[in-house]
Amino acid sequence: MKSYRKELWLEVPTRRAFVNITHEVEDCLRESGIKEGLCLVNAMHITASVFINDNESGLHHDYEVWLEKLAPHEPTGQYHHNRTGEDNADAHMKRQVMGREVVIAVTNGKLDFGPWESIFYGEFDGRRRKRVLVKIVGE
Amino acid sequence: MKSYRKELWLEVPTRRAFVNITHEVEDCLRESGIKEGLCLVNAMHITASVFINDNESGLHHDYEVWLEKLAPHEPTGQYHHNRTGEDNADAHMKRQVMGREVVIAVTNGKLDFGPWESIFYGEFDGRRRKRVLVKIVGE
Amino acid sequence: MKSYRKELWLEVPTRRAFVNITHEVEDCLRESGIKEGLCLVNAMHITASVFINDNESGLHHDYEVWLEKLAPHEPTGQYHHNRTGEDNADAHMKRQVMGREVVIAVTNGKLDFGPWESIFYGEFDGRRRKRVLVKIVGE
Repeated sequence: MKSYRKELWLEVPTRRAFVNITHEVEDCLRESGIKEGLCLVNAMHITASVFINDNESGLHHDYEVWLEKLAPHEPTGQYHHNRTGEDNADAHMKRQVMGREVVIAVTNGKLDFGPWESIFYGEFDGRRRKRVLVKIVGE
Repeated sequence: MKSYRKELWLEVPTRRAFVNITHEVEDCLRESGIKEGLCLVNAMHITASVFINDNESGLHHDYEVWLEKLAPHEPTGQYHHNRTGEDNADAHMKRQVMGREVVIAVTNGKLDFGPWESIFYGEFDGRRRKRVLVKIVGE
Repeated sequence: MKSYRKELWLEVPTRRAFVNITHEVEDCLRESGIKEGLCLVNAMHITASVFINDNESGLHHDYEVWLEKLAPHEPTGQYHHNRTGEDNADAHMKRQVMGREVVIAVTNGKLDFGPWESIFYGEFDGRRRKRVLVKIVGE
């Protein structure tokens, strides 16, 4: 069994954004030399997500509006977590809806994807450097 | 390390439905001959889910009502994604709530499940052929 | 390839609670002797979650309030599932928001975590003994 590990660093200049990291993960897979196995991609921070969905800007706008409705940032005083001096309780919730991680099959040295699958980093409390972990195991 | 891959094809005749695919995944595991490892089951389409929950029709009704409340299909014009000519923005949201994939332990050649775990395909934009990927790695 | 399996038993005395199980999973990893691979941690019950987030009691309070807003327990008669004699339909929904499982990279014999990642068992229908499965595969 081979294993491969890499951290991808991101610094999103806004509080919230979606960043397409598909090519970076494909680069990792090539670098790993692994042909058959599983590829884990996860946010290493608890106010961010990694998820798979459509590379379409209108949908990303809709996600932003929808997540803000499900778990509004304001008023920040509504959350006990924000009494710690943070203002990011909503980000911990948005991250649960979108998920921490994805696991992707590796087949013949490729990410084994359906027609429209792309990997996104979802930032919900940005404006600082944060990391995504790529771990690939197989042969 | 052994690896196994199979696509399950589904065509749901309605826009939304939940389909029990537990037996199909068990058949894959038998066919793979893998006794110890991990089994990934994921939707290959971004308006569908694979999730594990109860095989109970009342609950599936409740999920349908609940997801429609969290991310309503109508009015379709409320979503920017639908300006692309689609009407399935809500399906991309429902899929995030229910999840893209499950990873299941394989122990002694069986899916290592608790008492009530069943695997479901959740369709949120059906009436066409779509795929689920089963990838099993182990020994 | 090595594989390791353990069940963690929990009995939460209330209907809902979040229990930090990070140390128990770390103990499993040590016991496994696995240095490189993947660690799956999943609820074996369909009204409970395993998720990764912050070990901060204010946030756990916020999750409780938020989940109860997204999928209220009362009135229990609003859910068809509860016609089976159960009163836990809301628990099946809360579990979908928070997720069934996490997959964690294992690197150099450690859970490969970012700075604030902790593993929680989320109980949404407690007051009885339930299980979490830890499955580790690698070398």
